[in-house]
Order: sequence, then structure tokens, then C-alpha cells
Amino acid sequence: MSTAGKTIECKAAVVWGPDQPFSVETIQVAPPKAHEVRVKIVASGVCHTDYHIMVGAVANVKYPLILGHEGAGIVESVGEGVKKVKPGDKVIPLSLPQCGECQNCLNPKSNICEKSDFGKFSGLMLDNTSRFTCKGKLIHNFVSTSTFTEYTVLDEICVAKIDDNAPLDKVCLIGCAFSTGYGSALNTAKVEPGSTCAVFGLGGVGLSGVIGCKAAGASKIIGVDTNSNKFTAAKKLGATECINPNDIKEPVHEVLTKMTGLGVDYSFEFVGDTNVMLSALLSTNFASGTTVIVGLAHATAKMSFDPMVLLSGRTLKGSLLGGFKSKDIPKLVCDLMAKKFDLDGLISHKMPLAKINEAYDLLNKGESLRTILIM
Amino acid sequence: MSTAGKTIECKAAVVWGPDQPFSVETIQVAPPKAHEVRVKIVASGVCHTDYHIMVGAVANVKYPLILGHEGAGIVESVGEGVKKVKPGDKVIPLSLPQCGECQNCLNPKSNICEKSDFGKFSGLMLDNTSRFTCKGKLIHNFVSTSTFTEYTVLDEICVAKIDDNAPLDKVCLIGCAFSTGYGSALNTAKVEPGSTCAVFGLGGVGLSGVIGCKAAGASKIIGVDTNSNKFTAAKKLGATECINPNDIKEPVHEVLTKMTGLGVDYSFEFVGDTNVMLSALLSTNFASGTTVIVGLAHATAKMSFDPMVLLSGRTLKGSLLGGFKSKDIPKLVCDLMAKKFDLDGLISHKMPLAKINEAYDLLNKGESLRTILIM
Repeated sequence: MSTAGKTIECKAAVVWGPDQPFSVETIQVAPPKAHEVRVKIVASGVCHTDYHIMVGAVANVKYPLILGHEGAGIVESVGEGVKKVKPGDKVIPLSLPQCGECQNCLNPKSNICEKSDFGKFSGLMLDNTSRFTCKGKLIHNFVSTSTFTEYTVLDEICVAKIDDNAPLDKVCLIGCAFSTGYGSALNTAKVEPGSTCAVFGLGGVGLSGVIGCKAAGASKIIGVDTNSNKFTAAKKLGATECINPNDIKEPVHEVLTKMTGLGVDYSFEFVGDTNVMLSALLSTNFASGTTVIVGLAHATAKMSFDPMVLLSGRTLKGSLLGGFKSKDIPKLVCDLMAKKFDLDGLISHKMPLAKINEAYDLLNKGESLRTILIM
Repeated sequence: MSTAGKTIECKAAVVWGPDQPFSVETIQVAPPKAHEVRVKIVASGVCHTDYHIMVGAVANVKYPLILGHEGAGIVESVGEGVKKVKPGDKVIPLSLPQCGECQNCLNPKSNICEKSDFGKFSGLMLDNTSRFTCKGKLIHNFVSTSTFTEYTVLDEICVAKIDDNAPLDKVCLIGCAFSTGYGSALNTAKVEPGSTCAVFGLGGVGLSGVIGCKAAGASKIIGVDTNSNKFTAAKKLGATECINPNDIKEPVHEVLTKMTGLGVDYSFEFVGDTNVMLSALLSTNFASGTTVIVGLAHATAKMSFDPMVLLSGRTLKGSLLGGFKSKDIPKLVCDLMAKKFDLDGLISHKMPLAKINEAYDLLNKGESLRTILIM
């Protein structure tokens, strides 16, 4: 019996307030309004950004909310006027929407649609209401997605239709981790063949950065992580060497500089720690290096440095989703299916939604790469 | 009678210690050793960087020293083995040498030769000695140049031969101010036709930045300075609008954002103040803007910001000499003589070396653009 037009009851991981654990609850998901799409989420990756939000480290976020922004699923029903997808289509929710009409969508250098909720964190659909309720309370969404739930509702501009044969329990990573890491090397840094790279943080995003550096033809890819257990995975994906800062006496940027003569050409911060960002910056060639920061730091953390560090010719930049515009997502899925890259090396665990707190414990202990929650 | 091979007595502006004024003294300039060149300086620009050194704001600098790094002159004599120039040649001293052999010289992205004294500030020739003495004391040089003197001695890698017909009292600016500002727009930011730019600081370097933005085809060039007297010169050179932050109530980055919709595409800091650097950064489009910092800040000043400012897609970079390799200097002199740009609009005063302290008073009061000292 079709559920179209009806409210769906399902399970979701709700965060009731800052620094409260995920609570798996029965929620109500209202039907999609005009230009909205209701999606049955099949799989969702466990990203550290959601944890930052859970613990209240990001300003302006509205609680209660349903986190998760790295999902893949199947369209259950669509609201009036939706042209992009139909029920049964496989889709990836877009935490960075693409209206295709605003100044930033029209700018080839930018991937942050002006309708993005990132930074604003209203937690609402574009019409300023929510489709989620639980125990009679309005539940907010997260960056227009919310994928830690069996069903979610998305604005049409927040949905990318993907190949019908795509494996949803893998391609969910293209919604965030993979694209973020891979694109930070290829799009944001524009790593060149023969160059040297340092990748700080070897979780799911960092390993995708390693894949990107390798795809770009880097001659040296040095992985940096305080958990040496991750080095095997990193080397399998392309890291030529790995360093654990706890195993060395000198600051890691000095070791990296010695290993490469004048410092690496490109460095990447996939941790979300301003001290690590600074290490990454100092690791590059003072006269030509580029550092890309990708990790989301605590809201009150500041990056602080002598501007002379940049004046000699360094570049410091950041990107979300690796600089990919959302329209690139289906293309990345095609590339995966054409075996241009592989996602298996990023996935360490699969678990049911009910075990979400356990999944985050593993992540925080540095014991997992990417964990995929299966709804 | 030839002075070759003899010590020359001449006038120079010596700084005896941090925060002491320039003192015009009779100094002894020893003959050039092998691979060195002695140059009669004809003209030298008054740059704020020298003032920073004079007041002791830059760490590691050795006193006493002769400042000045933006000069032009004529080769008086050469040491053994010098092939690049001969007596009588017009030259520009290079504060960024180019050995042509080191990793950075071979890297097309970098212009900081590993033999550069910038940052190290040894104040000595490549053989670790000095050619300057005064009152029996060794006097240091500044970034391998020292142009506030009638004669200086340069390592051969710190000399660029220029066109015989070049007007030395103008092309001295190509040794620093002009190249720094012009190149920061064309090389470092790579300003694109139709883009919007904000130029913070409208002195000699900032005005050269305006010239660069205009040459790149920017559609909007907004000058920012706390001295509105500079706006006429800026508009003459290409600024489409000018703002005095003291005349507005809101922070200047908010005004610039309103003027351009989402912020400027490119911003430039030519002041050397970390607060101004931050304003410049916040003035750009959050999803695609590029900021180039060029001003030399106080040694203890830090640039401090929430990394989220960059994460959304901004780029922050710096450059010395506008990213030009020193080998580009003679080409820029040719471009000037072919009237591809003009330097007259940058020069507000000409004075004898004896008035150097007066020249810096004018600069610090914001009452001069570039002052040229004529030796």
C-alpha cells in the first residue's frame, strides 16, 4: 500500500539538546510539500561533523534535531511540481544544495548555493517549517538533509539522482567524506603530478584525500595520524609514508620539512583542530606551499599565526565538499562504478542505526575509519 | 680617476640601533670581492618596510645597518668572475636574489631563492662579511641590497641589468613597490576580467595594486584608506570608488559586501596591520573570495580568525615582490618604457638623502605616496 501523501512513522536518531547522546526514537515524517522529496534512507555514514553538532560545538544550531548528512536512499514520494526525481529513483541528499540560479551557483569557483543552510543552521526546509515531529515536538533537520533516520524529506534542490545500479551502502560516502577529501586534493589544492603532499588525519575524509593526491599523481604522500593503526589502510590507498606525531620528538612540521627538503608542496587538515591546521600550514614550502583546511573546528577555536608565514608565498584555503558542485555528485557515482576509484578501503564498520552511539565511540577513539549505518 | 679596487668614502643613512632615526654619515665602502658588484645608487624609494626595521619591529635584524631596498643605480666596478654586468651598466638591486639553481629558483611557483636574506636577516654578503664600515664599525646590509647610500656592494645574484635608457629616478620603484602591488594582483591573486576588487592601503604599493587590478580588467576596484587625500591619485590610476573607514559607521567589510552583493572577488592588504588583513579577508565572497596580504606586520602581531571563514571556500595568501621572479625585473622596465604602465602617479615627492627622516615623517603621517630619495 502506498505511503504517498501520508505521514510515515519510523525510527530516527534524535539529539534533544547540546551534549546529549543520540536517542533512537519513533518519529513522524510528514509528506513532502510542493518541490519536496521524501526519501527512504538506506545507508548513512558516520561523520565527525555530526558529532561536533551533537556536543554543541557549533554556534547557532537549533535543537532538537536529526543529524546525518552523508546518506543514500530511494525516493518514496514527491511533492507537487517535482521534476528532478520520481518514486523509486536512487538519490544522494545534498548538504550543499544547488538552486542553479544564484550568484554562487552561477560562479564556477563557488559551490555554496545561497540557499544552503550551512552556517545559518535554521534546521528548516526552505519554507521555514519542518517535516519531522517526535513526541509532539518539532524536530529540526541538519544542513537540509538529516540522514540518521529511516525517512527524511528534502527540498528538490537538495537531491541528486544517481545511477540505478549504484550500491547505496557505499555511495553514501560520496555525499560527504569521499567527495570532501578527494576534491580537496583535486579541486581545491589542484595537486600536481610529481608534487609532495602531507595528509593530516587518516579517517574516512583523510583517506579520501590520500586517494585524491594519488589520483593527481603526487610522488610523495605522507600520512599523519596519532593512531598508527590507520597506517595500513592509508598505505593501501596511496600513502608512501606515515608519521605518528606521538612517536617523534620534534614538531611534525619540522620532520616533514626535513623529509622533503623545503617542506611539502601541499598539506591537508582533515582533523578539525586549529593546532593541527597550523602544523599543516608550517609543513609546506615557505615560498610556494598550499594548505587546505577541511576539518570543522570548535566554534570558539581560532587559527592564529604570524602573517609572515603566508607573506613568503604560502596559500591557505578551505573548502566544503572538496569544492565539488552538487551537480558533480552523480558523475562521481558513475566514476565509482567505472572503477576510477574504490570506496571499500574507507569503510571499516557497518552497523544498524540503533548502534549509532557505539559508532561514534569508535570514531572518537580513533578506532574506525568510516562506519556506515544501515537503516 | 677610476675608483675600481679602492675603498670609496661616501654618504649613507645609517641606523645605529632599533628605534633610532636615520643618521646620515660618511661611510667606507670596500671594493667588490669575487662575484660581487659595486653600484653607485642614483635613486631609492622610501618604503614602509625599512621603517618597520628602523623601529625594531622585525625580529633577528642586526644593527647597525644601512636600510633601503628599492633602488636603481649604475655599476661602478665589478669583482672577479662577474659576467652579468660591467661598469656603466644600469641596474636594479634585487632584495630577492635569484641564484637560478636552488629548488625554489627552479620551481615556477616560487620567487624566494634559498640564498635570500629575507627572514634570516644576517645583514651580510654571501661570504658572511660586510663591505660597509663607519667610524671603525662593521655596518650590516639589508636584504642583500642597502640602497640608502651613495654606493653599495651587491652579490652578483642580487643585481638585474636593465635598459640603458631607463630613467633611474622612476624605475627604482620596480625594485619593490610597483612590482609588489602590480604582481599581487596579476600573479598572486590572478585577478580576472570583470571581477570585483578591494584594495586596502593606497600608498605606493597599494596604488600599484590598483594599476594591476585595472590591467587585469577588474570591473570594480574599491580603494580603502583612512586618508581621503589619497583618493584622487587612486581614482586617476583605476579605482572606481574609494572608502574611508573613518567616515562610515559599519565595519568596512560589511559595507564592501553590500556594495558587491556577496563580497568582492579579490581583496588586498597593503598596510601591514593584522586587523586590516582580517577586514580584507572578511570583505570577500565567503564561497570563492581570494585575499592577498602584502603588508609587513609587526613581528609580534598575529592574524587570528575562526577557520570557518576559510572553510566555506575562501583563499588567503601572501607574496613578496608580487610573486615576480627577479628575472622579470628587466622585463618590467621594458614594459614601463613601452608605456604599458606609468609610474608617475605613484611618486609624490623627490628629496635628497639628507632629508630621509623628513621623508619617513611624511610617509607615517600618510601625507606622501612614494617619495624618491635622490643620492
